[in-house]
Amino acid sequence: MVWIDINCDMGESFGNWRMGNDEGVMPYITSANIAGGYHAGDPHVMRETVELAAEHGVEIGVHPGLPDKMGFGRRTMDASPEELRDYVVYQLGALMGFARRHGATVQHVKPHGAMYSMLSDSDEHARAVMEGMLEVDPDLIYLATDMNIYEVAQDVEGLQAVFEGYIDLDYRADRSLIVEKEVDERDPELVADRFVSIATEGVVEAENGEQIDVPADSICIHGDNPNAVEILEAIHDRLDEHDIQLASLPEVV
Amino acid sequence: MVWIDINCDMGESFGNWRMGNDEGVMPYITSANIAGGYHAGDPHVMRETVELAAEHGVEIGVHPGLPDKMGFGRRTMDASPEELRDYVVYQLGALMGFARRHGATVQHVKPHGAMYSMLSDSDEHARAVMEGMLEVDPDLIYLATDMNIYEVAQDVEGLQAVFEGYIDLDYRADRSLIVEKEVDERDPELVADRFVSIATEGVVEAENGEQIDVPADSICIHGDNPNAVEILEAIHDRLDEHDIQLASLPEVV
Amino acid sequence: MVWIDINCDMGESFGNWRMGNDEGVMPYITSANIAGGYHAGDPHVMRETVELAAEHGVEIGVHPGLPDKMGFGRRTMDASPEELRDYVVYQLGALMGFARRHGATVQHVKPHGAMYSMLSDSDEHARAVMEGMLEVDPDLIYLATDMNIYEVAQDVEGLQAVFEGYIDLDYRADRSLIVEKEVDERDPELVADRFVSIATEGVVEAENGEQIDVPADSICIHGDNPNAVEILEAIHDRLDEHDIQLASLPEVV
Amino acid sequence: MVWIDINCDMGESFGNWRMGNDEGVMPYITSANIAGGYHAGDPHVMRETVELAAEHGVEIGVHPGLPDKMGFGRRTMDASPEELRDYVVYQLGALMGFARRHGATVQHVKPHGAMYSMLSDSDEHARAVMEGMLEVDPDLIYLATDMNIYEVAQDVEGLQAVFEGYIDLDYRADRSLIVEKEVDERDPELVADRFVSIATEGVVEAENGEQIDVPADSICIHGDNPNAVEILEAIHDRLDEHDIQLASLPEVV
Repeated sequence: MVWIDINCDMGESFGNWRMGNDEGVMPYITSANIAGGYHAGDPHVMRETVELAAEHGVEIGVHPGLPDKMGFGRRTMDASPEELRDYVVYQLGALMGFARRHGATVQHVKPHGAMYSMLSDSDEHARAVMEGMLEVDPDLIYLATDMNIYEVAQDVEGLQAVFEGYIDLDYRADRSLIVEKEVDERDPELVADRFVSIATEGVVEAENGEQIDVPADSICIHGDNPNAVEILEAIHDRLDEHDIQLASLPEVV
Repeated sequence: MVWIDINCDMGESFGNWRMGNDEGVMPYITSANIAGGYHAGDPHVMRETVELAAEHGVEIGVHPGLPDKMGFGRRTMDASPEELRDYVVYQLGALMGFARRHGATVQHVKPHGAMYSMLSDSDEHARAVMEGMLEVDPDLIYLATDMNIYEVAQDVEGLQAVFEGYIDLDYRADRSLIVEKEVDERDPELVADRFVSIATEGVVEAENGEQIDVPADSICIHGDNPNAVEILEAIHDRLDEHDIQLASLPEVV
Repeated sequence: MVWIDINCDMGESFGNWRMGNDEGVMPYITSANIAGGYHAGDPHVMRETVELAAEHGVEIGVHPGLPDKMGFGRRTMDASPEELRDYVVYQLGALMGFARRHGATVQHVKPHGAMYSMLSDSDEHARAVMEGMLEVDPDLIYLATDMNIYEVAQDVEGLQAVFEGYIDLDYRADRSLIVEKEVDERDPELVADRFVSIATEGVVEAENGEQIDVPADSICIHGDNPNAVEILEAIHDRLDEHDIQLASLPEVV
Repeated sequence: MVWIDINCDMGESFGNWRMGNDEGVMPYITSANIAGGYHAGDPHVMRETVELAAEHGVEIGVHPGLPDKMGFGRRTMDASPEELRDYVVYQLGALMGFARRHGATVQHVKPHGAMYSMLSDSDEHARAVMEGMLEVDPDLIYLATDMNIYEVAQDVEGLQAVFEGYIDLDYRADRSLIVEKEVDERDPELVADRFVSIATEGVVEAENGEQIDVPADSICIHGDNPNAVEILEAIHDRLDEHDIQLASLPEVV
């Protein structure tokens, strides 16, 4: 039997503006990355998203972003390591506030968009954020989107990290992801094949046909994919057959 | 011997804009009400203010405001009880994030400006915020600026509250405060007299000369008063003579 | 032949968050009320919306809101007449900036949501905003959502105003509107009947069956109504038969 | 006789937070660069600053910044040329709204902080902003902070540009500026010497003692310098003796 986590970005609505399909997706995942109110989300959305996660027994983490709602946190900015660290602590703490009501613990941190890119590009920024996390709670897990940042996390004393893989996007042979402007429908069966392949063998086929290593213990699903729920159903249908057990991050770390 | 707390609003700078005199005032107080990033403050300012409080052994609370930096949180808005509650939980949680690093606990909640007025005017809003606090941490103390809100707090099951008095502003005979547009210098000795009068007898002279009851266990000092430090020194000079002991909120509740 | 304007709120997307159906609706209207970036909209959205209006020969006005994106400008706040005036001048000027590129003129001002309510409730606020408009451009037309504000506008020296009617919402007998939480589909033929009735006779049937006066020279359509385009098509189909001519605000004022 | 402009950044207060010394400085300058509400400023501050400029017969320009109040617009961000252009048009238009009341015209554009750096580093971004300006008003002058951006401006068909020099900061021999974290007092007489030197000979002494060319037709003064007013007085005292005439940008372009 193999154990794997499924994570999804959640709580990215803002005020009257809706985004994603949190209610449809939540029943199928094990970890919700909840926007912290900087690139997306607000206190009301956070509360509702934490509540929805609690109803489905889904573990929660914070999905902190840059203070740039107009750019949805997707534009890198020349902020210092300390600034990023403080933005993460702020959003992480805020989520902890909402978690308390359900007796829930914030289990992980997964930076969003341009903040993630900045950490991946600068070890100094990555370390500052990771050390800031540990000061808040030494049990927090860093959910790492690429191998560079995963390796930095491994080097930070006392920090647990999980590497995540993608199945509704394509990989290049160098294990970088091909991110598309518009999120397209994907064939649920092909995506589920990839899920099984990563979960059981730690490999996936890159766009050029090559088999590449993706040693992931968590799989990220894009909730704004128009057929995200179908994809998740197809994945769940494969679990028994392949002896895969869904598990939360603390169980797979 | 009487015990009394001295609280002060802190951390109201924002980015490059400075406000208040936190470094000057912190050595003299026992409770810092730290802005939560909505009406004032930001993650960097919060971190620095929490650190400054820790250095001086000052207890911290959150000073949450409305999401209105342009109006400095001083304009009431038609927000629902649930919206206010969620704004408080968000800012409270964020401060808890920064407190963790120092092993500190957020001990109290004191709403700012127009948010305070809204709670004072609507029991429903006040209750929602107070119940929200308790869901985050049942040990949190509500620091009550007027008697109306203090009484609501008394009625909320399980909530501890402390009533605060003012000495650098004048009271009307009905115990309402005369708030001035500009913060003026005050005679430190007269202000210290009032401190002693409230601390030892629970009374103060109103503007019309009448003695009124101000049964306060905490005294609020305005840190942006141009001679706030002088006032605080004058107060400290009286403590021994009048057998007054400064204490934190949990000690006076 | 009667002349009437059709106006619709536009440009209420923000960053990555979409709202409304501007592209579907624009071909059918004569006046676009474009969000000014406070309650909704941003510079990029404004530019695109002005461009779309120019392509369809639709006249533009500003739809200024309160500085409250989290509440979508729907929460009244205790702002002064001068504050509202300055918020309107700011957003109006910004739209003028984008209009210049198309040689277009901003022709009208229609305050959004809670800002509109505040002007309707306080003549002093309404006058401040209207006088502020005239200082920017004396040719600007105030598009009045209710009779109270229309009458204030009539009293402001030199200000032109147009009263607007609603056909995709129901009126009470006192000419107040029944605003619903969720925008529902409406029967296009019934809505078109109302359009004709207001345009040709200045009357509409209230929810209690009574005929009431709605002396409107402009009709507001909600672009976020799920069948807004169908409704607009049904209206256009009636124009010839009833000898109704669509016209811009300067033509109907 | 030589003609030269003196410009200063203005209107950088925000809500209750004060910055700069606009009232002290305005009587001595010829061009005010007014913050557009993105990195600093707000509608009320803009109105007051435009009014103050009008009282002193000072010409106005917009000082647009990035949408980053927390970082005071001093952090470059990965925004597209079109995004920057739209931020400038928005803030420029807003200022035009306030100018109308005084029959004033916005005469120039001088990007702030990190936005300026981005334009200096990328000709594509610079061109987009400059072409956006011209679409709003072909008479607008671009006030160029360095030679790179001045040269791009010269290449944009139909755009007038003025190169500005600095006298309260030191130049390196390569004509780059030594920007200090804290704005220090400067000897007014030495600063006034530099003013005369640039105005009459177009040269200044760099930190290494070398004479370098600074062919400026406008001089920028930092209004937040603690002795800005003294410096400006020293400059004004030299005007007659050296036959220097203060003039607005359209006069020196």
